[in-house]
Amino acid sequence: MSPDFARLLSELRDRLPADTLLTDPGALAAHARDAAPFSTAGLPAVVVLPRTAAQVEEVMRTAYGCGVPVVPQGARTGLAGGANAVDGCVVLATTRMDRIGTIDPVNRLVRCEPGVITKRLNDAVAAHGLTYPPDPASWETCTIGGNIATGAGGICCVKYGVTADYVLGLDVVLPDGRRMRTGRDTAKGVAGYDLTRLFVGSEGTLGVIVGATLALRPARSAALALLAQFPSLTAAGHAVAAITGGGYAPSAVELLDRATSQAVAEFGHPLLRPDSAATLIVESDAPDPAPDLAAMKKLCEDAGAHQVVAAGTADESQKIIEARRLVSPALTAFAATLGGRPTAFIEDVAVPPSELPTFVGTIEEIARRHRLRIFTLGHAGDGNLHPTVVFDESDPDEVQRAGTAYDDIMAAGLALGGTTTGEHGIGTLKRAWLGRELDAVSHALHREIKRLFDPRNLLNPGKVVEA
Amino acid sequence: MSPDFARLLSELRDRLPADTLLTDPGALAAHARDAAPFSTAGLPAVVVLPRTAAQVEEVMRTAYGCGVPVVPQGARTGLAGGANAVDGCVVLATTRMDRIGTIDPVNRLVRCEPGVITKRLNDAVAAHGLTYPPDPASWETCTIGGNIATGAGGICCVKYGVTADYVLGLDVVLPDGRRMRTGRDTAKGVAGYDLTRLFVGSEGTLGVIVGATLALRPARSAALALLAQFPSLTAAGHAVAAITGGGYAPSAVELLDRATSQAVAEFGHPLLRPDSAATLIVESDAPDPAPDLAAMKKLCEDAGAHQVVAAGTADESQKIIEARRLVSPALTAFAATLGGRPTAFIEDVAVPPSELPTFVGTIEEIARRHRLRIFTLGHAGDGNLHPTVVFDESDPDEVQRAGTAYDDIMAAGLALGGTTTGEHGIGTLKRAWLGRELDAVSHALHREIKRLFDPRNLLNPGKVVEA
Repeated sequence: MSPDFARLLSELRDRLPADTLLTDPGALAAHARDAAPFSTAGLPAVVVLPRTAAQVEEVMRTAYGCGVPVVPQGARTGLAGGANAVDGCVVLATTRMDRIGTIDPVNRLVRCEPGVITKRLNDAVAAHGLTYPPDPASWETCTIGGNIATGAGGICCVKYGVTADYVLGLDVVLPDGRRMRTGRDTAKGVAGYDLTRLFVGSEGTLGVIVGATLALRPARSAALALLAQFPSLTAAGHAVAAITGGGYAPSAVELLDRATSQAVAEFGHPLLRPDSAATLIVESDAPDPAPDLAAMKKLCEDAGAHQVVAAGTADESQKIIEARRLVSPALTAFAATLGGRPTAFIEDVAVPPSELPTFVGTIEEIARRHRLRIFTLGHAGDGNLHPTVVFDESDPDEVQRAGTAYDDIMAAGLALGGTTTGEHGIGTLKRAWLGRELDAVSHALHREIKRLFDPRNLLNPGKVVEA
Repeated sequence: MSPDFARLLSELRDRLPADTLLTDPGALAAHARDAAPFSTAGLPAVVVLPRTAAQVEEVMRTAYGCGVPVVPQGARTGLAGGANAVDGCVVLATTRMDRIGTIDPVNRLVRCEPGVITKRLNDAVAAHGLTYPPDPASWETCTIGGNIATGAGGICCVKYGVTADYVLGLDVVLPDGRRMRTGRDTAKGVAGYDLTRLFVGSEGTLGVIVGATLALRPARSAALALLAQFPSLTAAGHAVAAITGGGYAPSAVELLDRATSQAVAEFGHPLLRPDSAATLIVESDAPDPAPDLAAMKKLCEDAGAHQVVAAGTADESQKIIEARRLVSPALTAFAATLGGRPTAFIEDVAVPPSELPTFVGTIEEIARRHRLRIFTLGHAGDGNLHPTVVFDESDPDEVQRAGTAYDDIMAAGLALGGTTTGEHGIGTLKRAWLGRELDAVSHALHREIKRLFDPRNLLNPGKVVEA
């Protein structure tokens, strides 16, 4: 059946309030892609901004009936092209569905709609002495629905787990418009198959999330941070292994490689030595963090750190954390020196933490081989690194080398027992790589599951797997 | 296609070592059912005890080719009939696949085969200063494969989570004999759909688990326990709410209702008052548990406890924990006084913790209405209760009332926003109830997923959902 766009628009206009439909070229262009550079994207035929789950059902039923693809979107902060439009599709943005339900401190849960901004949810639950831990970099602007669809991670995952660990239940609209509920409002439950987890991280390819029940935790204590710099990657790796192997539960273990440490030092951070092979930023939010921090400081020193600074106050911690926050502006400043059209590829490979030193070393070698600047930073505590290739997009040869380096990094991660994506997702960007990461039977089963949920391949087609 | 048993046996004998096949009537009868009373079970045609994943593939391919159903079994400690044989099936028991792979303290993981006994795994990882937390009641005899298949829980889940939270990846043989791997060896990862979680808790209906990568944690500190008794259910509920709402992280919050408290007191436990409406046993394994325990003791007193004993030493803790351990012998002693053929139905309903007092009160009312003795104990911290109906199986009227009470308890749990099974599973026992717990779309999707994985309905047929 070929898509019937004229019927689609006419039916959507009949069934939905006028202000939920956008067809002006500016709006269509604005909703064409998420934050992943160099990913394929088309132009939507219409952008729909429903306010209720019933309106989402209408959209799905209508598009299904007309044979028109639907691409769900949150805040479009994704980094894998998972929310990129396909030509002539309906973009279904859930940003206006942003109600937060009753916050329940005794059962430690909250129900909310998909368009709620992660920071807003956290502010709301903080008023009840609670927290929703997942903290992806975009947490001030991204939506809960997008977080769930990508299975978002963040910095404090090393202690508190990822988005998936906080999703107790979901309300979902299937490609044909039927609505269903997964999961439950209880901490434990094993009735039936775990469909909640099947939807989490499925990047909008199996259903549209229209509501979620999320688990909460008691508010976190004020944290203290530690900055440790090392003359070698191996020494930094030993420090990470000693901390996790020693039974400590740091709330952050962030790594900056040599290039990133240097960039941040040159950008003006007062505490960073520019000549370090690796910098670790470690944070403890234990009720009394000082003894934990002192013990972890000692482990860094024993591992061979040539500079260690442990904060004694919140202000000192802020100064240390600032080093992590300065990575982005420091890389932007570096990029400006490149000339041409500077841009960046951000990677998302995770390896077993024991392989971190080898992996970072391999990335440095890949950078040399391809004559590129690659800045590696990431969540060392769970082995999830974000090597970032900064290059000049106006130089075709450099673009080609950057692309090859991007692939080489994924291949190296897989060879070390890792995964091509720790928290950003497959989207359009890594679809070919999914076939290398999964075995053939699993990959075939992925396609069969996609076909079961979406037999006409109309929901977010071309993402994660081919139908 | 009708099953070809003669061909099946002949082919299995050709393809597998003789000592992996059992056909003597004693062995067949011994493998007919798990530990769920009153659940339907058939008699297997053959019991296969493979030693390798390749042998499991052979079994599955052969049975698939002959159209004969296969029922996977671990230690048969399940309580829902999920491992019960069907007439003429192959029972595939993975108990001889019991190798533990390298224990990896830096990445905090271990690979093991499905037949490893949970306690043995824990002893092995303890030698490396690590622990595998899930602690179902049968942990000294049950298998990891069975734990994964049922999504087993336990006492320390309230702090450490359930089996599902520790499964990073699985090796699985599909109904037609194809082997695949799910998940990964990294803490984080979002490549593709979460098939690991789809297999966890699927009760052997989608595939046979032949290997697992499990996450581990640093060894737990020695715990201290607290016993608190209350004159009313509401008071006990307030204490639980104050503990969880106060941000404490107890490693156990166990509840004994009035009947159970009385039975254990009468059985001779020196600390229990027999006249309490509810008893709580709370444990802290914080590095320094004493201040935590003192604070939780105060919360119990403030909530109106009429007796509180906090342990100061490991020995005193043992005495308190003993009250929980005596429940089973105390109920057996009570059952012996019933005459006839005393037996017990154990329930597994979970409700939001705030609903616990109402739920326990409703159970007491159900007991009165049906003139039955129901003993409720369970994991109050996560709302998961095990009301146990003790009755005389030789009295048809009592059997009928026990069955009705069992159903009434599930209906009450669902009405309070709960689930019919917190950790035991659906099996054969609660299959009809799954249709009441799930909405119609979700239930239909369950059947479609079963059909996708097992189009001929040959793997553990009749469990969880009808094909």
